[in-house]
Amino acid sequence: MSFSAQDLQDQIPKIFAPWITAMDLQVLEVGAGVGAGEVLLRLPVKPEFVHSGGVMCGQATMAAADTAMVLALMMELGEFRPMTTVQLQTSFLRPISGEHCLIRARVLRSGKSLAFGTIDISNPDGRLAAQATTTYALL
Amino acid sequence: MSFSAQDLQDQIPKIFAPWITAMDLQVLEVGAGVGAGEVLLRLPVKPEFVHSGGVMCGQATMAAADTAMVLALMMELGEFRPMTTVQLQTSFLRPISGEHCLIRARVLRSGKSLAFGTIDISNPDGRLAAQATTTYALL
Amino acid sequence: MSFSAQDLQDQIPKIFAPWITAMDLQVLEVGAGVGAGEVLLRLPVKPEFVHSGGVMCGQATMAAADTAMVLALMMELGEFRPMTTVQLQTSFLRPISGEHCLIRARVLRSGKSLAFGTIDISNPDGRLAAQATTTYALL
Amino acid sequence: MSFSAQDLQDQIPKIFAPWITAMDLQVLEVGAGVGAGEVLLRLPVKPEFVHSGGVMCGQATMAAADTAMVLALMMELGEFRPMTTVQLQTSFLRPISGEHCLIRARVLRSGKSLAFGTIDISNPDGRLAAQATTTYALL
Repeated sequence: MSFSAQDLQDQIPKIFAPWITAMDLQVLEVGAGVGAGEVLLRLPVKPEFVHSGGVMCGQATMAAADTAMVLALMMELGEFRPMTTVQLQTSFLRPISGEHCLIRARVLRSGKSLAFGTIDISNPDGRLAAQATTTYALL
Repeated sequence: MSFSAQDLQDQIPKIFAPWITAMDLQVLEVGAGVGAGEVLLRLPVKPEFVHSGGVMCGQATMAAADTAMVLALMMELGEFRPMTTVQLQTSFLRPISGEHCLIRARVLRSGKSLAFGTIDISNPDGRLAAQATTTYALL
Repeated sequence: MSFSAQDLQDQIPKIFAPWITAMDLQVLEVGAGVGAGEVLLRLPVKPEFVHSGGVMCGQATMAAADTAMVLALMMELGEFRPMTTVQLQTSFLRPISGEHCLIRARVLRSGKSLAFGTIDISNPDGRLAAQATTTYALL
Repeated sequence: MSFSAQDLQDQIPKIFAPWITAMDLQVLEVGAGVGAGEVLLRLPVKPEFVHSGGVMCGQATMAAADTAMVLALMMELGEFRPMTTVQLQTSFLRPISGEHCLIRARVLRSGKSLAFGTIDISNPDGRLAAQATTTYALL
């Protein structure tokens, strides 16, 4: 089975916590490449995500990264399977200060029980703002 | 200068994004040990943090960890200094399924420009649910 | 089954690559606590581990951390089971410049297929030089 | 100033610990792209790197990743500057079992005091075996 961007968008409120659904992540593109799950999302930099330093809080960045990877794994697997994040490491390279940011998640490997991925979070000008790597356990 | 738990609690809405303030993290204890910034927080497992699997979403865990470390660094430094998260790595050991969880953040080292810390997130029964390690740049 | 420090020492050349065995890690203590695998090792800061900056290279620190965790998992499991490192994250807090360093590895959780641990690498004066967190897959 | 592959190769014994120099990393290519330090290295899978499971030990993978990033930073900066690894996270996706592996290190961002990079370690068939992300402090 394969998913369209709209299919994934519709899954968000069914899979994720209401706190995550309320972030208003938007699925822009899916399925780049053969055999490699990949999704591109947009996150609006809402006023409630901005901290006293005037930029988007890192907590929103990490939340978006984790969420994007679950969707990328759905693309990879062709279905939603129960899974749990084993580990997520995020490096913060530059502030995010525009009106939105872009989140590209890509599955690096999906095995029987473990899956690995990487997530780039960029400013609209294309400059990389954060990069995450993550491991999931497929249940 | 030193801070009480209430002082830190009062700082939360001034420093963090409204999205984080609305998590309702509660500062329970501060200042364990000499020379080592440490704080203990409680996070209520609100219904909006719970995903389709019935447990608290990992995004809330990471958000709480990052937030707790900023407060621990305030304890360590005796002031709020502008800082930015360089990197945060979280490992997820067990689900969080009770009514709240506990977050203990501890500064491992605070140098001139970089600070390092570790955060334990536990279930109320004391079992470790997640562990994070993190690096901050002091600006 | 339980292992003595000498038992673990004897296992090193049987399990690890010759390149690791030649590091001359020494098992000092094992089995601190019930239910939690823990080992304490000593690594001599050999001249070949020292880089142009005059301190022990980080590569040796990471190698020692990974090795120590395998031994801690043997303590936890009561046997050597085939396992593979899924992920290892190391933060470097201070240089290691003495004649040796101490490596304390502790299993945080050991489940059916995944195990989690943390490793502290300290200077002889007790000051923390590096901290690692790691995930292993039990095969 | 810019460096050739041979220039970097010649720097290895001057910068790194003898234990690392003895790994016999070979600089294959340098300087892919404008403004982004990048290097491609080859590591022979020597018998001393192979553990009881018959594949290259993860410790060698991590050591190669860290070493490659220092060289990529030299390309980026146009000089060797004293630097220290702040943090290095490695995920292990697949075993390395051939006669050598390839290490591609790329600088993601180089700021005044911090630099970020990512390293792909692949089997000769191009399949990704490990991926590392790392932060360095420029001294």
